[in-house]
Amino acid sequence: MRSTTRGETFPVSTPAASQIFTTVLSHGPLTRLEAARRAGLSPAAVTKAVRPLLAAGYLAEDADDGGRPALGRPANLVRVDGGRALFIGVKVTGDAVIAVLTDLCCRIRLARRLPVTDRAVRAVLTSIAELTHGLRVEAEDFGAPVLGLGIAVSGDVDRAEGVARYSPFLDWRGVPLAELASLTTGLPVVVENDVRALTVAEQWFGAGVGLSDFAVVTVGAGIGCGLVVHGRLVAGAHGVAGEIGHVAVDPAGPLCHCGNRGCVEAIAGDAAIVARVRQVTGRQVAGPAEAAALAHAGVAGAREAYARAGEAIGRGIATVANLFGPERVIISGEGLAAHDLFAGHIRDAFTAAAFGSAARCDVQTRPLPFEEWARGAAATAIHSFITPTPQG
Amino acid sequence: MRSTTRGETFPVSTPAASQIFTTVLSHGPLTRLEAARRAGLSPAAVTKAVRPLLAAGYLAEDADDGGRPALGRPANLVRVDGGRALFIGVKVTGDAVIAVLTDLCCRIRLARRLPVTDRAVRAVLTSIAELTHGLRVEAEDFGAPVLGLGIAVSGDVDRAEGVARYSPFLDWRGVPLAELASLTTGLPVVVENDVRALTVAEQWFGAGVGLSDFAVVTVGAGIGCGLVVHGRLVAGAHGVAGEIGHVAVDPAGPLCHCGNRGCVEAIAGDAAIVARVRQVTGRQVAGPAEAAALAHAGVAGAREAYARAGEAIGRGIATVANLFGPERVIISGEGLAAHDLFAGHIRDAFTAAAFGSAARCDVQTRPLPFEEWARGAAATAIHSFITPTPQG
Ligand SMILES: [Zn+2]
Ligand SMILES: [Zn+2]
Repeated sequence: MRSTTRGETFPVSTPAASQIFTTVLSHGPLTRLEAARRAGLSPAAVTKAVRPLLAAGYLAEDADDGGRPALGRPANLVRVDGGRALFIGVKVTGDAVIAVLTDLCCRIRLARRLPVTDRAVRAVLTSIAELTHGLRVEAEDFGAPVLGLGIAVSGDVDRAEGVARYSPFLDWRGVPLAELASLTTGLPVVVENDVRALTVAEQWFGAGVGLSDFAVVTVGAGIGCGLVVHGRLVAGAHGVAGEIGHVAVDPAGPLCHCGNRGCVEAIAGDAAIVARVRQVTGRQVAGPAEAAALAHAGVAGAREAYARAGEAIGRGIATVANLFGPERVIISGEGLAAHDLFAGHIRDAFTAAAFGSAARCDVQTRPLPFEEWARGAAATAIHSFITPTPQG
Repeated sequence: MRSTTRGETFPVSTPAASQIFTTVLSHGPLTRLEAARRAGLSPAAVTKAVRPLLAAGYLAEDADDGGRPALGRPANLVRVDGGRALFIGVKVTGDAVIAVLTDLCCRIRLARRLPVTDRAVRAVLTSIAELTHGLRVEAEDFGAPVLGLGIAVSGDVDRAEGVARYSPFLDWRGVPLAELASLTTGLPVVVENDVRALTVAEQWFGAGVGLSDFAVVTVGAGIGCGLVVHGRLVAGAHGVAGEIGHVAVDPAGPLCHCGNRGCVEAIAGDAAIVARVRQVTGRQVAGPAEAAALAHAGVAGAREAYARAGEAIGRGIATVANLFGPERVIISGEGLAAHDLFAGHIRDAFTAAAFGSAARCDVQTRPLPFEEWARGAAATAIHSFITPTPQG
C-alpha cells in the first residue's frame, strides 16, 4: 500500500523518467549525454524525461563552466535540486527507533532517536509518530515540504502491501504498518525490509554506486542480505530473497528458529554467539557486548564462538558468490562491533569456499550506523515517490 | 570472440530491436501493441524496431483474421520468419558430440550425433566440423543460409572471449574454441557454458517462457544451474555464476574436486554416487547405470546413496530459492534417468530447507535430451546474431 494521502505527485509517467532521475541522483551532476549513456537511453529520451522534472523544480540545470576551455557551447549539467523536497526515514530495531530527515538528494539533515521500551505495535507507532512530528516541526525552517515516510523493519516485509508479515525481533505478525503509520502521520508511507532499504542506499549513494551486481550482508541480531542483480534489487517471486541467514552450512549445526539445523544465523547471529559462549565457558553472559568482551580478554571458548561465526558467514558469502558472482560484497551491521574477532575467519572461509574466479569478488567491510539504515528507509520513500504507479 | 567470418548481418542497432525480436520469437505471433506491452516498450519504439526487420525478411506480418469479428481494421500479427535463416547448435559431452540444425525460430530440423572416442581438442573439433559440414550439405534443401554455430560445453566458459577456460569432464583448459571452430567451419561461432545455453532455450521456448525469475538445475556428471533474474541470464561479474554444484551443504561430507568438502556435486554427481555405492556395497560398480540398477533392485546401500544425493540437491535448490526467490526451478539433465530414486528426497529436503514462502517455488522436472541442450547452443548463436555488437 502506498500513499492514500499524497499531497504532491512526481511528474513522471514512464520508467525511463524515474531511471534518469535515479541516475542523476546517484551520480551527481551529469550532462544529458552522460546521463543518457549511464541510463542506457537515447539523448532524445533524456531530453523528454528531463523537461517536466526541470519545470517542477525536482531537477535543475547549471552551465558547466568549471575551468574548461570555452570550445563551442558549454554542456549544461543536470542535477537533482535537493532542497526541493524532504523525506523522513525510520529504522525500527528491538531497542530503538531511529529517524532521519533527508532532502531529495537523500542527504541527512537531522537525526533523532527514541528508545524502545515496549515492542508492541501501538507503542512503536507512537514513537514513530512522535519522531515524525518533531522532524516536521524542525523541517519548517528548511522551506520545503515533507513528501513521504519510509519505515524499515527486519524480517519478512511485503512492500507492495505495506505489511510487516513477520518480524521475529519485534515479534510482529501481519502488521499493516504502512496503513497505520499513514493514519497517524498523514504522510504517504512505504514499508520495506531493513536490509533491502540499506541496500538501496548503498546502491544509490554508497559502495554499490555504478555496480550492476553486488550484495550487502548484515551481521548482528540477524544475518541478512540484500542482492542487486542486473542493476535491480532482488525481491523474490514470493517475497523471499537474500535469506543468507537461513542458508544451511552444517547439517549437524545448532537448531535455528526457522526449524532447520546449521543455518548461518543459528551459528553467527548475536543470540547464537551468546548461547555458544555461555555453553563453552559456563558463564552467565548477558549479551553480545559481554560475549565480545570475554573474547577480547582472550577466553578461549569465547574466541572459538566468534571463529565459528566468522566461518559460517564466510561460507554463506561464498555461496552467494558461487551462485550469482557479484562484483562486491559489502559486510555491515551492528555485529561489526566485534569485527576484529571474526574478520579473518570470514575471509579465510570465503576464500576456501569460493569457486574459481568467484574468489575475485571484492569483499569489504563498511561500518554503517543505524542512521544510515534510516537513510535507506528515506531512499525507499524517495524511490516510491519518483516511481510511476503501475497501471492496472 | 564472435564472428570474423559473418556473411550476413542482422539489421538492428539498438537493444530495443533485439528485445522485440526475442519477444516475438518466444511468444509467437503478436500484435505490435502486445509485443510493446510484453517488451515494456512504447508502440512507436516497436514500429521503429520492426521496420528494418520486416524489410530484411527476418520478421513477417500477417493479417489476423482468425475468426474474429471484423470490427474496424484487423490488427496485423508480427511473427519471426523461421525459414529465413538456419543455425547449428552443438553440445559436447564426454561421450558424444550432438548437433542440431535449427531454423531462425530455433525449431530443430535435423539432429545428428558422433561418439567421442578421444577427448582431445583436435579430435572433438574434427567431429564438430564433420557434423557441421554434413548438416550444411543437408541444409541446402531448405533454401536458407546457415548464419551461425553455437557450441555448448560444460565448465567455466568465457563467452565473450570464446574460450573454454576449464572443462573438467573434457579435461580442457584455456581452449580458444570459438576461434578454432570458426577456422574449421568458416561460420561465426559462439561458445557458451552448456547449462546456460539450456537455460536460454528454456527461457525462450521452454518452461521459463514468461517468467522473469527462474532457475534450471541439471543433474548428471556435474550438477549445474542457470539463473534468470529480472528476465536476464546471470553471468557473474567474474564469469562464475550458478555454481550450485559447489555449494557446500555438509562440512563433514566427501572431498570435492574443487578442494572443498560436502559440495552438492561431491555428493550427488554421477561419480560421487558411483563411489558411494561401491563403498557401501563393496561391489565393483562400472558406472551410473549399474549403480541405478542396484538401487532399483533394492540393494540398501545403493538406495541410500541416491537418498543422500537427492537430499543434497534439494538443499542446494532451497539455497537458490532462499537467496533469489525464483518462481520456478526446472530440474533436468541426464541424471533424471534415476529420477525415481531421488525425486522424493529432493522434494523433502527442499521443503524442509526453504525459508517461509520460498517453499512456494514451483519445483518441476523436465527430461530434456541432449538434442535440447544442442538447441540451447543454437539459441545462443541466434542470440548472438540478433544482438548488436557493443560499441567501444
Ligand atoms: Zn534458519
Ligand atoms: Zn566443489
